[in-house]
Amino acid sequence: MIVSVCLNPALDITYTVTALRPGASHRVRSVQRRAGGKGVNVASVLHQQGVDSLVAGPVGGTIGAELTAGLDRAGIAHRLTPIVGATRQTVTVVDDDTATVLNEPGPCLTSNEWSTFRGDFAAVTRDATVVTISGSLPGGVPGDAYGQLVSIAHGTGTTVVLDCDGEALIAALHAGPDVVKINDTEAGTATGLETDSDDDVFATAEELHALGAAAVVITRGSAGVAARTPSRRFTSRPAGHVDGNPTGAGDAFTAGLATAIEAGLDWPSRLRRASAWAAAAVAMPTAGVLDPTVAADHESRTTVQEH
Amino acid sequence: MIVSVCLNPALDITYTVTALRPGASHRVRSVQRRAGGKGVNVASVLHQQGVDSLVAGPVGGTIGAELTAGLDRAGIAHRLTPIVGATRQTVTVVDDDTATVLNEPGPCLTSNEWSTFRGDFAAVTRDATVVTISGSLPGGVPGDAYGQLVSIAHGTGTTVVLDCDGEALIAALHAGPDVVKINDTEAGTATGLETDSDDDVFATAEELHALGAAAVVITRGSAGVAARTPSRRFTSRPAGHVDGNPTGAGDAFTAGLATAIEAGLDWPSRLRRASAWAAAAVAMPTAGVLDPTVAADHESRTTVQEH
Repeated sequence: MIVSVCLNPALDITYTVTALRPGASHRVRSVQRRAGGKGVNVASVLHQQGVDSLVAGPVGGTIGAELTAGLDRAGIAHRLTPIVGATRQTVTVVDDDTATVLNEPGPCLTSNEWSTFRGDFAAVTRDATVVTISGSLPGGVPGDAYGQLVSIAHGTGTTVVLDCDGEALIAALHAGPDVVKINDTEAGTATGLETDSDDDVFATAEELHALGAAAVVITRGSAGVAARTPSRRFTSRPAGHVDGNPTGAGDAFTAGLATAIEAGLDWPSRLRRASAWAAAAVAMPTAGVLDPTVAADHESRTTVQEH
Repeated sequence: MIVSVCLNPALDITYTVTALRPGASHRVRSVQRRAGGKGVNVASVLHQQGVDSLVAGPVGGTIGAELTAGLDRAGIAHRLTPIVGATRQTVTVVDDDTATVLNEPGPCLTSNEWSTFRGDFAAVTRDATVVTISGSLPGGVPGDAYGQLVSIAHGTGTTVVLDCDGEALIAALHAGPDVVKINDTEAGTATGLETDSDDDVFATAEELHALGAAAVVITRGSAGVAARTPSRRFTSRPAGHVDGNPTGAGDAFTAGLATAIEAGLDWPSRLRRASAWAAAAVAMPTAGVLDPTVAADHESRTTVQEH
């Protein structure tokens, strides 16, 4: 079983308008509301792919209730910790040319709520082989919140894939996450290093490894992926360009990686699976859903090379 | 007692961002959520001014529940008709330079729900001396929905102030609303006439009167107000410029006009009260609230002239 952690879930609202013009009043043509946040997207992909999984996170307020109802309707298993603060929403305004995103900061957890969440997480992690941890930290939790979750998961022998950036990442590395998954821009910001060439990216991965990550997987968009595993180095190149919506592709990558780890696949197979799921997410208009044809095609054709 | 009708209420959400840039991702600095929609703003002003009043409208979904809870918290009396469709939200994105508004279209009412609403409206209107009707029509109601409400109110001798525009206005005029309150731009669009000079504006008012409105009050921003009452014509000029947020000023005008009608004041006094409340709303950052000092000052100093 795979547990995906979403400490700062959101109700993702998408508005379609004719043209977004700052200062103007707009009639919204269509409204979509769906459960979101990176960890929820991971859980959504896992559920769609028939993987035994569960999403864990704090929820509160009317939006938290709507998010919970959305997970129930979709059949996505969850262990949600009630909090007093209100779960946030995000608003994405799509017109013909652009997608403009408004991210609410989200609620603050009390120290009691954080303690309750850790207990809930420990309970569900006992039955998990892999845990994914994705996204930003809500207010009120300690800076090394993700490090604490890594330690709890390791206490029951569970493998952790960590997808976060900035201070939340750096503060978690001391706990030794099994895999850090990050994109090149975030990796460069976190380490202060360049990420232009293959050599740059591997040097950045080496730095994150030195700080505690057992393996580091750095996604580079159309340039593919660089992985510094505990003992080897790989690059993978995508099987081809996919047109579509890149939102949620990174979460599909994390989901694919987690399933490949759970299945005991080797690192080249893990990278093929993860890259294929990312491509299959781009092919779909909504985050959290894969195009199964693209997934199968890309998994068979993504090339992985050892360095 | 004054009943304010809000057929398409909304939860008004305001985001503060550093600078809104189409195509970018924004961190929202602050989030405000409040019960809104023009009829709710009228009710909010009336409640703040200690006027015996009640807001009537259809609500549904989680946002409808949050809106109802917001009215309860504010102590605003209501007779809300439950509907299956979900009450809409609006999102206003404020940065240093601009306010950008995203208006969701709102739910569709079934014919049964519209029938139930009319029954609820008839019940509360029996105790009312004045009814205000404000804002856009939701989907699913007949084009002359406001005309039907005017007829119901007239059945119990209740005076109606109608603040709407476009087809909803034109279709309601045959029912003979006692006062149509509209701004100059909306009046020009509804009639196809110019609204530049005093004469233009009075000609436009005359046209709306010929179509059925007993009295027509046209607001013209800093140029003041033109009124074509059943037997006379007036202009009023504001007591001075007020800096602030014009959102909700028109609703405060309607609220002021309704209280002056209920109090049996003559037309010059009605226009002074309404103009003063609009100015007092501009002075406050949030719609639905007045600055009492500005209201008292402007009511005593707004000049009204007969033509």
